Amino acid sequence: MQTAAVRHRPESEDCYLVTTETMKLRLHTGRDVKAVYVHYCDVHEPLTNLKKQAMDLAGHGQVNDYWETTVTLPLHRAQYVFEIHGEDGEEWVYGDRGFRKNEKESYEDPNNYFKLPYFHAVDMTKSPDWVKETVWYQIFPERFANGDKSNDPEGVKDWNPSDHPGREDYYGGDLQGVLDHLDYLQDLGINGLYFCPIFKASSNHKYDTIDYLEIDPDFGDKQLFARLVNEAHARGMKVMLDAVFNHMGDSSMQWQDVVKNGPNSRFANWFHINRFPVEPYDPADPSYETFAFEKHMPKLNTANPEVVDYLLTIATYWVKEFDIDAWRLDVADEVDHQFWKKFKAAVTAIKPDFYVLGESWHSSQSWLNGDEFSGTMNYPFTGQVADHFLKGTQDAKTMTELLTDQLFLYREQSNSAMLNVLDSHDTARIKTVAGEDEDKALQALAFTFMQTGSPCIYYGTEMGMSGDNDPDCRKPMDWSQAGSPVWQAVQAIIAFRRQHWESLSKGQTWLEVEENGLIHVKRTGKETIEGWFNTTGQAVSLSAEAALSRGYEAGQLASKGYVLSVK
Amino acid sequence: MQTAAVRHRPESEDCYLVTTETMKLRLHTGRDVKAVYVHYCDVHEPLTNLKKQAMDLAGHGQVNDYWETTVTLPLHRAQYVFEIHGEDGEEWVYGDRGFRKNEKESYEDPNNYFKLPYFHAVDMTKSPDWVKETVWYQIFPERFANGDKSNDPEGVKDWNPSDHPGREDYYGGDLQGVLDHLDYLQDLGINGLYFCPIFKASSNHKYDTIDYLEIDPDFGDKQLFARLVNEAHARGMKVMLDAVFNHMGDSSMQWQDVVKNGPNSRFANWFHINRFPVEPYDPADPSYETFAFEKHMPKLNTANPEVVDYLLTIATYWVKEFDIDAWRLDVADEVDHQFWKKFKAAVTAIKPDFYVLGESWHSSQSWLNGDEFSGTMNYPFTGQVADHFLKGTQDAKTMTELLTDQLFLYREQSNSAMLNVLDSHDTARIKTVAGEDEDKALQALAFTFMQTGSPCIYYGTEMGMSGDNDPDCRKPMDWSQAGSPVWQAVQAIIAFRRQHWESLSKGQTWLEVEENGLIHVKRTGKETIEGWFNTTGQAVSLSAEAALSRGYEAGQLASKGYVLSVK
Ligand SMILES: [Ca+2]
Ligand SMILES: [Ca+2]
Repeated sequence: MQTAAVRHRPESEDCYLVTTETMKLRLHTGRDVKAVYVHYCDVHEPLTNLKKQAMDLAGHGQVNDYWETTVTLPLHRAQYVFEIHGEDGEEWVYGDRGFRKNEKESYEDPNNYFKLPYFHAVDMTKSPDWVKETVWYQIFPERFANGDKSNDPEGVKDWNPSDHPGREDYYGGDLQGVLDHLDYLQDLGINGLYFCPIFKASSNHKYDTIDYLEIDPDFGDKQLFARLVNEAHARGMKVMLDAVFNHMGDSSMQWQDVVKNGPNSRFANWFHINRFPVEPYDPADPSYETFAFEKHMPKLNTANPEVVDYLLTIATYWVKEFDIDAWRLDVADEVDHQFWKKFKAAVTAIKPDFYVLGESWHSSQSWLNGDEFSGTMNYPFTGQVADHFLKGTQDAKTMTELLTDQLFLYREQSNSAMLNVLDSHDTARIKTVAGEDEDKALQALAFTFMQTGSPCIYYGTEMGMSGDNDPDCRKPMDWSQAGSPVWQAVQAIIAFRRQHWESLSKGQTWLEVEENGLIHVKRTGKETIEGWFNTTGQAVSLSAEAALSRGYEAGQLASKGYVLSVK
Repeated sequence: MQTAAVRHRPESEDCYLVTTETMKLRLHTGRDVKAVYVHYCDVHEPLTNLKKQAMDLAGHGQVNDYWETTVTLPLHRAQYVFEIHGEDGEEWVYGDRGFRKNEKESYEDPNNYFKLPYFHAVDMTKSPDWVKETVWYQIFPERFANGDKSNDPEGVKDWNPSDHPGREDYYGGDLQGVLDHLDYLQDLGINGLYFCPIFKASSNHKYDTIDYLEIDPDFGDKQLFARLVNEAHARGMKVMLDAVFNHMGDSSMQWQDVVKNGPNSRFANWFHINRFPVEPYDPADPSYETFAFEKHMPKLNTANPEVVDYLLTIATYWVKEFDIDAWRLDVADEVDHQFWKKFKAAVTAIKPDFYVLGESWHSSQSWLNGDEFSGTMNYPFTGQVADHFLKGTQDAKTMTELLTDQLFLYREQSNSAMLNVLDSHDTARIKTVAGEDEDKALQALAFTFMQTGSPCIYYGTEMGMSGDNDPDCRKPMDWSQAGSPVWQAVQAIIAFRRQHWESLSKGQTWLEVEENGLIHVKRTGKETIEGWFNTTGQAVSLSAEAALSRGYEAGQLASKGYVLSVK
C-alpha cells in the first residue's frame, strides 16, 4: 500500500462542520486501498468509548482515491484516527502522529488522534441557500440591449451581431435594455443576473473605474438601477454586481491627484508606488504597480485603512441602498486576504445570505474557508470541460478524474456555491471553442448544469452566438435567434436544472467513464439523477429513461448527444 | 514513481512569503524521487520567461520526502509548476491541473500553473524575533518560591520538595518569591518568564478564574507585579502570562449570576447553556458546557460580542498597563478562530512583536497561518522525544522521521516560534518519564535545545526534580540543588543555546540516524551546528570537535551521552 499517498488535513476541507454537531471527514489515498474506517469519540472521553464507522469511496481522482463519511458528536468535540486496509493486505492506523500497525495498542495513544477540539458555529463555512437554486445570466451591459438611444456614447456603431467589435467600439447597450428584457430572461428560466461593471468608467467594459458610487451615464442612473433591482426581485431574480477593487482607472480623481501631486498627494499611499513621478510608466521597470502590465489600471493598496474604509463604504452602499444580493469580485486573488475577511464581514452583517463570488482562475483553497468568498468563478472546471467536450484535447477519463480532484479541494458548502461558467467576457464563446459545433456546446452545457455549483450562462449562448477571445466575445446580442432550436435546447436545460436544483446542488457526485465510452454522471440527493454523455464519436447503445435528452432515439445515443434521467 | 504521494498546497506552509519578494516552496513526494525542479515566472508574464531552479531534498519523513527552495519575484506575483524525476526514470510535470508528461507542451498551459497571485505583506506570517533568542522558564507560582509569608493561604504546608502535593494543598509560593530569584534565573541563563495563571481564582493552580483583572491575593498585588515586570525587563527577560479564556471559574460573579438568575441573568448568553437551571450538573447529560467534564469550569461563549469585548479588554489591559510581552492561551484549541483573530489583532496593535502562544496538544495548521497564534506549545514534539529518549518505546529512526514530518506542517516563521517543552504543569516531569534517569533527561534536553523553536524549562528541571502527572509534578521547588552537577549541565545547555541562538532558531534542520546508530542533528545557518546523541545502549566511536558534550571521551560517546559541535 502506498502509505505516502495517504493524507488528511485536520480542520480543512478534509474535516469540517456540516451542522454544529456533525462533521464531514475525508481521507485521500492512492488507488490501492480497499477499505477505510474511522474510529472516533469526544476529545475528553476515554478511548474506550470509541465508535467505528466505515468510510465510503467517494471518488476516483487522477492518482488519488477519496474516502468520506459523516459523524455526529453531540458534545461538539471530536478526536479520530483512520484504519486503512490496502488491497495488498497491509493494514495501517493513520493518525496525528503518523502510521502505526493496525493492532490494539495503536488505538490507545490519545496523542495519535486527530482533533477537532470544539465545533464552533461561528467558524463554520456557510453558503447562501438561494445560490443553490439559481441559474445565472451574465450581462455585458454595453452589448446586451440598447433600451435608450438618448444615452448612447458618441460614435456608437450599428447593433450588428455579426460584427467583430474592436477594443474601443461602443454599441449603446444600457440598463434600460436589461429592464426591457427581464420578461425575456424569465422565459428563458433565469433567476440570477450577473452584471459586468456598471459604475462610471472610461472604457466600454468599465473595468477602469472612475467613480464606484455612480452609475455610468452610458448605462443610466441610480433611479433606473433601483427600478431594475426591484423589477428583478419582483420576478424572483437575484442581482449581482461586479466590484473592481484590485485597481482603479487611471482617470479616477484619486490617481490623477497622484499623477499631479506625486508624493504630496493625499492619495499617494492608496496605491503601490515604486517611485515618483509615476509617469511615464515603463512595464520593464514599473514606477507603480498595476493590474498585469496595464498602465491604465493602477493597483489599489488594500492594506491602507483609508482604502479599506473607502472600498467597504462602496461595498455596503450598494447593498444597503439598492438591495443587491451578491458581489462578484474582479481579480479577487490579487487582493489581500485581510481585506476580503473584512469585506465578507461587512456585507454579511447587512444581509446574512449575501453571496460573495471571487474571480479566480486556479485552485482557491485559501479563499474558501468560509470567511472570504462563498465561491469562485470556476474556471478550472471550465478548463476541464472545454478540453474534453469542446476541444477534444483531453480524454474523458482524465476529465472525470480531474473534475473529481477539484471537488475534493473544497468543502461541499463551497462546491455548491461555485459559479460554473463555460465562457464569459474574458474567454472565447463555447461555440467558438467547439469549432462552431453547436451540438458540442449544448452537450457541455447539459453536463455543466448537472454538476454541483451555480451554473451561469453568458449572454447570447442561448442564441448560439460565436466569438473568439475578447473583444470578439463581446458582440452585440443577436436577438433574432430568440426561440430558435438552440434557444429551446438551452431553455430545456435550464428548466431541468431549476426543477431538480436540490438534488443537483446538494447531492453526492460520482463521475466516471463507462466501458462503452459514455461519460456517466450520477447525482444522489433527494432524487437520483443520472446523465450519459457521448463523446466517443459514434452512436452508443444505452437503455435509460430520458427526462431530457438530445440525440437519443431507439436505445441509441448519438455522438455529441446526452440523456438525463431522474429517479 | 508514486504520483499519488506527490502534493503541494498553494498559499499554505507549502508556499509562503519569506520576504515581500521571496517565497518558499515545498513539495511532498514519496521516498522514490531523485530530483525536483520548479519552473516559475510572474503571473502576467508570458511563459517564455520561465526560470528553472532545482529544489533541495530538505527532509525524510516517515513515508514522505520533502523538497524545498526559495524563489524571488520582484513584481510580487508568481506562477509555477514542478518537474519531478522518479528514481524509476519516470518524469512528470505536476501543476494546478494535475500530472502531465514531462514534455514541452506540458509547460505551455498557464492554467496548469500554481499561483501566488500577489505577495501581500499584510498576509505574511510573522513571528517576533525576540522569541527566537529566548530561553523560557515556566513558573507555577504557588510552588516556585515563597517570598512573603504574610500572604500565605490558610493551612499552608511546609515547603518540602519531596512532598507529593495533593490537589487541594497550598505551599505559599508567590510573586515576591519570583522577584527574589530573578538573579538566580539570570545566572541560569533564562531570558523569558512564563507564568501559570496569577489572576484571582479559587484553586492553587488558578485555572478557575474569578477575576481576570486582579492578581490573586495569595500571590501579591498589581504593584508587586508591576515591579516584577520592570525588574525582569531590566534583566533583559520577557514576561508571558497565562490567559484562561476558554472557561471561567464557577465562583466568578458572572457564573454565579447565571446560577442564581437562570435565563434572566444578563450573563446567560456568556456561556454555552443547554438548559436551566444549570445546577445540578450531570456529566452524562450536561446542563452547560465546560472544559472537559469539569463542572467548576463553565465554557465561555466567545461568539458573543460582549464576551469578546470583555476578554479583549483583559488581554489588552495587561499589555498596556503592565507591559507584558506575551500571552500563553490556555485550552486555546477549543476557542473559536474568529476570536483568536481579533485577539491577535488587538495585542499586536499595541505591541507589534507581541508573542501569542496557543496551548495545543496536536498538529495545529489551522491556527498557525499568521493571524492567530505565533506558535503553540509543542506537545507533539514532546511526545516524539519522550517516546524515544525518555521511555524508549519508539526507535530513533521513527523519531527523526516524525519530527521531520512535524517541521513540514508549518511555515518556518511558526516553527521558530513554537514553545518546545519537555514537561510542564500538565505532564509528568522528564526525569520521572525517564524512569528517574538523569542522564536521559539531560540528553533529551540537549537535543531539544538544538531544535528550531523556543525552548522552555519547567521550574525545577535544573534541580533534577522528579514528579509524576499532576499534581505530583507541582512539588515545591528544591532550592537545595542550585549549583549541583545537574544544575551546571542545564546551565551549560542554556548557555550554548543562547550563544548560538541565531543558527539554532533560523538554520535549516536535518535529522537522521547514522549507520553507527547515533542520532545526528545538523543545523545550517550562520554557523553549522551538529549534534550526536547516543541512545544505542552502548558506547559508540565518534570523531567530533565538542563545543559541549556529556559522556564523550577519547573518541567514544557513552550511552546516553551527547556531543554538540560548532563550525
Ligand atoms: Ca443606449
Ligand atoms: Ca506566600
